[in-house]
Amino acid sequence: MSSNALVDFSQLSPKFRDLYAKAKVFVEEECIPAEKTYNLQMGQGDQRWKVVPQVMEDLKVKARALGLWNLFLGQDYAEGAGLTNLEYSLIAELTGRSPKIAPEAMNCSAPDTGNMEVFAKYGTPAQKARWLQPLLDGKIRSAFAMTEPLVASSDATNIETNIRRENNEWVVNGRKWWISGAGDPRCAVYLLMGKTDSANKNPHRQQSIIVIPADTKGITVVRPMQVFGYDDAPEGHCEIVFKDVRVPLENIILGEGRGFEVIQGRLGPGRIHHCMRCIGMSERALDLMLTRVTDPSRKTFGKMLAQHDTVIAEIATSRMEIEQARFMVLNAAKKIDEVKAKGAMKEIGMAKVIAPNMLLRVLDRAMQAYGAAGISQDTPLAHFYASARTLRYADGPDEVHRNQLGKIEVRRAAALTEQQRIQKDKGDRLAANVSKL
Amino acid sequence: MSSNALVDFSQLSPKFRDLYAKAKVFVEEECIPAEKTYNLQMGQGDQRWKVVPQVMEDLKVKARALGLWNLFLGQDYAEGAGLTNLEYSLIAELTGRSPKIAPEAMNCSAPDTGNMEVFAKYGTPAQKARWLQPLLDGKIRSAFAMTEPLVASSDATNIETNIRRENNEWVVNGRKWWISGAGDPRCAVYLLMGKTDSANKNPHRQQSIIVIPADTKGITVVRPMQVFGYDDAPEGHCEIVFKDVRVPLENIILGEGRGFEVIQGRLGPGRIHHCMRCIGMSERALDLMLTRVTDPSRKTFGKMLAQHDTVIAEIATSRMEIEQARFMVLNAAKKIDEVKAKGAMKEIGMAKVIAPNMLLRVLDRAMQAYGAAGISQDTPLAHFYASARTLRYADGPDEVHRNQLGKIEVRRAAALTEQQRIQKDKGDRLAANVSKL
Amino acid sequence: MSSNALVDFSQLSPKFRDLYAKAKVFVEEECIPAEKTYNLQMGQGDQRWKVVPQVMEDLKVKARALGLWNLFLGQDYAEGAGLTNLEYSLIAELTGRSPKIAPEAMNCSAPDTGNMEVFAKYGTPAQKARWLQPLLDGKIRSAFAMTEPLVASSDATNIETNIRRENNEWVVNGRKWWISGAGDPRCAVYLLMGKTDSANKNPHRQQSIIVIPADTKGITVVRPMQVFGYDDAPEGHCEIVFKDVRVPLENIILGEGRGFEVIQGRLGPGRIHHCMRCIGMSERALDLMLTRVTDPSRKTFGKMLAQHDTVIAEIATSRMEIEQARFMVLNAAKKIDEVKAKGAMKEIGMAKVIAPNMLLRVLDRAMQAYGAAGISQDTPLAHFYASARTLRYADGPDEVHRNQLGKIEVRRAAALTEQQRIQKDKGDRLAANVSKL
Amino acid sequence: MSSNALVDFSQLSPKFRDLYAKAKVFVEEECIPAEKTYNLQMGQGDQRWKVVPQVMEDLKVKARALGLWNLFLGQDYAEGAGLTNLEYSLIAELTGRSPKIAPEAMNCSAPDTGNMEVFAKYGTPAQKARWLQPLLDGKIRSAFAMTEPLVASSDATNIETNIRRENNEWVVNGRKWWISGAGDPRCAVYLLMGKTDSANKNPHRQQSIIVIPADTKGITVVRPMQVFGYDDAPEGHCEIVFKDVRVPLENIILGEGRGFEVIQGRLGPGRIHHCMRCIGMSERALDLMLTRVTDPSRKTFGKMLAQHDTVIAEIATSRMEIEQARFMVLNAAKKIDEVKAKGAMKEIGMAKVIAPNMLLRVLDRAMQAYGAAGISQDTPLAHFYASARTLRYADGPDEVHRNQLGKIEVRRAAALTEQQRIQKDKGDRLAANVSKL
Repeated sequence: MSSNALVDFSQLSPKFRDLYAKAKVFVEEECIPAEKTYNLQMGQGDQRWKVVPQVMEDLKVKARALGLWNLFLGQDYAEGAGLTNLEYSLIAELTGRSPKIAPEAMNCSAPDTGNMEVFAKYGTPAQKARWLQPLLDGKIRSAFAMTEPLVASSDATNIETNIRRENNEWVVNGRKWWISGAGDPRCAVYLLMGKTDSANKNPHRQQSIIVIPADTKGITVVRPMQVFGYDDAPEGHCEIVFKDVRVPLENIILGEGRGFEVIQGRLGPGRIHHCMRCIGMSERALDLMLTRVTDPSRKTFGKMLAQHDTVIAEIATSRMEIEQARFMVLNAAKKIDEVKAKGAMKEIGMAKVIAPNMLLRVLDRAMQAYGAAGISQDTPLAHFYASARTLRYADGPDEVHRNQLGKIEVRRAAALTEQQRIQKDKGDRLAANVSKL
Repeated sequence: MSSNALVDFSQLSPKFRDLYAKAKVFVEEECIPAEKTYNLQMGQGDQRWKVVPQVMEDLKVKARALGLWNLFLGQDYAEGAGLTNLEYSLIAELTGRSPKIAPEAMNCSAPDTGNMEVFAKYGTPAQKARWLQPLLDGKIRSAFAMTEPLVASSDATNIETNIRRENNEWVVNGRKWWISGAGDPRCAVYLLMGKTDSANKNPHRQQSIIVIPADTKGITVVRPMQVFGYDDAPEGHCEIVFKDVRVPLENIILGEGRGFEVIQGRLGPGRIHHCMRCIGMSERALDLMLTRVTDPSRKTFGKMLAQHDTVIAEIATSRMEIEQARFMVLNAAKKIDEVKAKGAMKEIGMAKVIAPNMLLRVLDRAMQAYGAAGISQDTPLAHFYASARTLRYADGPDEVHRNQLGKIEVRRAAALTEQQRIQKDKGDRLAANVSKL
Repeated sequence: MSSNALVDFSQLSPKFRDLYAKAKVFVEEECIPAEKTYNLQMGQGDQRWKVVPQVMEDLKVKARALGLWNLFLGQDYAEGAGLTNLEYSLIAELTGRSPKIAPEAMNCSAPDTGNMEVFAKYGTPAQKARWLQPLLDGKIRSAFAMTEPLVASSDATNIETNIRRENNEWVVNGRKWWISGAGDPRCAVYLLMGKTDSANKNPHRQQSIIVIPADTKGITVVRPMQVFGYDDAPEGHCEIVFKDVRVPLENIILGEGRGFEVIQGRLGPGRIHHCMRCIGMSERALDLMLTRVTDPSRKTFGKMLAQHDTVIAEIATSRMEIEQARFMVLNAAKKIDEVKAKGAMKEIGMAKVIAPNMLLRVLDRAMQAYGAAGISQDTPLAHFYASARTLRYADGPDEVHRNQLGKIEVRRAAALTEQQRIQKDKGDRLAANVSKL
Repeated sequence: MSSNALVDFSQLSPKFRDLYAKAKVFVEEECIPAEKTYNLQMGQGDQRWKVVPQVMEDLKVKARALGLWNLFLGQDYAEGAGLTNLEYSLIAELTGRSPKIAPEAMNCSAPDTGNMEVFAKYGTPAQKARWLQPLLDGKIRSAFAMTEPLVASSDATNIETNIRRENNEWVVNGRKWWISGAGDPRCAVYLLMGKTDSANKNPHRQQSIIVIPADTKGITVVRPMQVFGYDDAPEGHCEIVFKDVRVPLENIILGEGRGFEVIQGRLGPGRIHHCMRCIGMSERALDLMLTRVTDPSRKTFGKMLAQHDTVIAEIATSRMEIEQARFMVLNAAKKIDEVKAKGAMKEIGMAKVIAPNMLLRVLDRAMQAYGAAGISQDTPLAHFYASARTLRYADGPDEVHRNQLGKIEVRRAAALTEQQRIQKDKGDRLAANVSKL
């Protein structure tokens, strides 16, 4: 159980406290019990890509009625619930406990959240009417098509998908993969990043973002990518070929050559949402571990697992790691509240590295306690693990964030060198006086 | 590339050296290239449980013609190739490079290997004729049914499946899961462990092992278990219900109450085979990492991954971990050659803990270098990871092996205490003399 | 540089903010430059146990004038500065940057702090007049004599030192070691824990704490214990024999058999002070690392260390570990403010494990960047390391704290098991309904 | 207890087996008991730099009589015992168990060993007569002066000490530190590396090695450097100023500009000796841990430490790490035997990284089991720790060795890329045929 004395709930808004309490009940009493039904309604094989489990639609109605809806949209958005990032982070932890169900039920699931932010922030009135409103209503879903298979597209300047203007249309050609959500039968729209001006000398002005209705001619969903052995139907992570896909000129976001700017604005808070859901998943994993190690029917050689102090030590380690990671995520959220995401890149970067790695370790311990059941479909642990593993490279691999953080620290070196020089000089003078005495 | 100077190939048998050279070529030039075809021939969905990919049958013919057949059966078996455990371990490393193809192609894949050993060691002539011979010929496959879902069956005394004698038949009732190989259309026979005498005061005399033809009435394969989303068709890891399954009395192995004895005999060398395949998998993972980090099309921010010294350090760490683990496995194999598995329990236990954990770390680094491709179906890494993860609890979890090893060390304490007492006494006398001078 | 957005300085008291600003300047501009002189004035060899470096006395005068005096005594003490534990922790971080100088200069150094707390909380007016006041004035120093060489005295019930009543005196016999501060020429008084009633059935009522003037007959300081190769003169960590040491009956703290109660009250906040100083030491170590890796005179093979991204990654890791540990310590401090140390045992325990282990890792990275200088007398790193290493067993080893923490978590298992049962039941009912449709 | 089945003692030379058996007894029955007396005879304070403990001289007589003398000099040296590197490594493990006593007692202690190798390999007959013979006889000691305080001298091209020719003399000016052995009253000679031609375009031809008698005018030993507070008297690690130090022209080793060549030849096997002593130290540490955790007088809360399975797990981990490290060191030794040190750089580098890091972890666990005693002068653990810590940067820091190793691996990438391309082409053709069927 968390020991967070640094964030004082009594100082947070009454609105938040009400929503938090409701969300807690909703996740524990509605979402987690619905997981089994969701899986059943999904069905088997190819069917899984065609069905929208009814239980999800039922939960969405309930959540919306409770006000648990679009909470990710903060104070910067007219459409939002007005929560601070700190407040929403605490709620995102709760939804992370049932990550397949709760975020979607509360219309707070990726990639729709980021896409709604883009439309809300940069969309024309027409774009908002056509795409943002149904997204806000949970009527349609969306995808963000950026990653490409043949290049290192985590460096956006490497992107190869071409967008050329032809008369009054944009014509898109390229291959994307890991397009999450594109498999969903409700996915109605893609935001696609490509190059409108690959010859531009400024490598960050070559890219544009185009809105492409999912039923446009020329789009072929090639295959779902697997994460470990999971295809994550119905959303999926799809490989898609765009061949001479045509959309009207007004389907551009913000304007030609401004794609880089858009994705920069899209990244910060979303990363924190992932991180906070990681905390929720880790808490659920630890809860599951606790019940397993105390299950009297699981004795080996006469002892429950909880009677081994190695197991107790692993539980304690998980608890300590969770607490530390949570503070880092909440700290980043509060910093965003104070100085916007751009000013909180260091804090976001730290949280982004720490939370998924922590979750993977906590999950691994829980899986080990469960033995075979832990890596199977009978617990959510292995699926959590697969999801968490993607977060170590998605939105920038650990190595890149660590490198940026380290370089930020190194910038302090010049001032420190000067400070240490002054301290040494003063110390030498002081010592010299002493020696003379 | 391995740096093993401690095992001198020139001291090993000419027969081994010939087989090793052939196996190396066979794995690299036949098995690895066949992986894609195998997956294609497996097909999709339910079909995957019904098909035997033709490419595998072709490879088996080739392997047998080359003498690369049943090499796991060592000098103790008339049917074997006469390799030592050390020698076979080196070949198992090679087959581990293509773990889905090479072991089966060379008729050296679990669980058939362990089952063939059981039949060869304990089988009656009739059992050998009916089951061992077609297994040795690669005509049928087999399964070993021990693990149960409702109890901690890693402690065999917890097993609940009931085997009762009724007239001239054994009647089996129980539920098993994680029965690897049982999904294969060629799986013709189960070796099942259950209790024939659950009231026996000696908890290790309650169990018996029964031979059950796979087509016996009363057997229901309930579902395949998943390992991180993989169902590992066609072999699968099945949950199976045995309801009033009847087999003749002669279908017992070794005799009533001797099940524990049989599984004890089955475990040692097989564990080492897994371990050595782990070495092979880790070498392949490192090879894949090396080609990825030097792929010029994968530059980010102008640099190949291999130009970052963090990446170089990770490669070096993987190399060091692989080398260390290999020595531990080869050492265990040599010890088995010298004093049989029973005398090498410490060495086997160490290798059993070290090899899979090493492999998981090496794989994780390789996956990270590949980014999204690394956890997808486009590289074998994630599937290797899932398989390796099961080895941390299968055949005894890490914790149990570590505990046994630690206790073996602690047994030395009494003699050490005495030795240190003698040293201290001598030291005190010596010092006393000195002080007097 | 710390990124702490969760503790809002503007919410803390103006008094604290003023003291904090002064302490920061005092540590950086007075204490750190004084380190060299302190070492010089200490001298060499035996002299080191006899001298009180004048620079320290000068600093004490300055600190007291600034109000930087006895800040550890919080709101519970009439004599204190009235800071909360959270506030004092932030100041203790600053003093940790110069751990040998700043805490003593500000009269906030162990073991005096804990001893002053004992006298302030439990002392009679006479005890306060004779011992507390000069301690508060920085005129004398003190020691706490609890640990014994021949038993595992971290379990206080094992203590063997005997205190027997004889007429109007207590007579003390026993051997103590690791009595920090006892080597200091200013050490005037010991608080000694021994057994007054070793036959008491309640093992926590056998102990009493006795006040012993350091110049009492029968006390022999046998030797200073070394921490790695440091003897930490002049305070030292002494082995002391008490042979028929006699003190008047009034020299008992709180009363006979209440020794356990006293040490319980002494422990909580002091542990946090150590932890917060660990944060300060780790920040200084990282600062030193940053200046070294950017020192152009230290190029190898044409590169500064900071041009290697492995070094950058180590710096980033240190930064992330420091931030996490700081939150844990501040969280514990705030929890103590809210519910007293007894209610914050879990948070204290976590901080107690995390902070020293973090510090050791940060120091090790800094030492490695410095090479030979890093482990020598030319940087403070190795001495910090030695001190930090003692914190992993002092006041309860890591293992004990981890075990306690794990067991606290396990207590949640029963309620979780019930919650998961309810969720499963609800989930099963929901799924059953679905299946019927 | 080691489980080394890969190195078959029966295959090693009878001479070795005899020496090994004698060395084992000598270390356990003579050296370890002598440790206390050695420390007593060393005395306290300044005396420690002046005394040669008599017990060491007595042990040297015993060792030489047993033939346990100069065993480090292998088959390449006429003066040597003719052991292979593999054989000597096994003996160095034994001497590592008492690292302060046994190596010197057997005239196998650094830096004399490396210096004797230099004289034996490159010395003129006159140099051999004057310096090598008394070193071989254990009559004098020596030092190797290479490291400098003001530059990163691990890159030898940075060295600044100047050696200029003036008439028939070399004139040396410079400052060196960490000159191990230079504090010993018996230290009679330095091998000093400096630059005779700092303008040479080939940065590896600028250096020369000069023989300097320790009593030459112009040499000032400034201070002993400390290692975690230890000064390692009497040998010490000294800072030394050379001011206009003059020696005859014949006092050059091998010739002008060949200093780099000499140190290259000096490094390989010596690194392995350190590594193997690390194995011996780790075995002694584990032995000490085993006796402590089973000491019934050290019960806490009613249990011996060995009754906690966390402690058992730590012991097991130490055992596994020791075994792995030993194989790496023996492997490097055998490789040197097969292809000389130059051909075994990869194996030596791996052993060099692995052994000290392993030892530090094993020691840390043992220290934790001992609590306060573990970091004090009452066990050898903390001193071992300090020594082992220096090995992580001496003779090339971990980072450099890891980087070199990683780059050696990366060289394999081109061939692997080609192999994988061939495999893929073959696989594609095979799959294409299949699809057609």
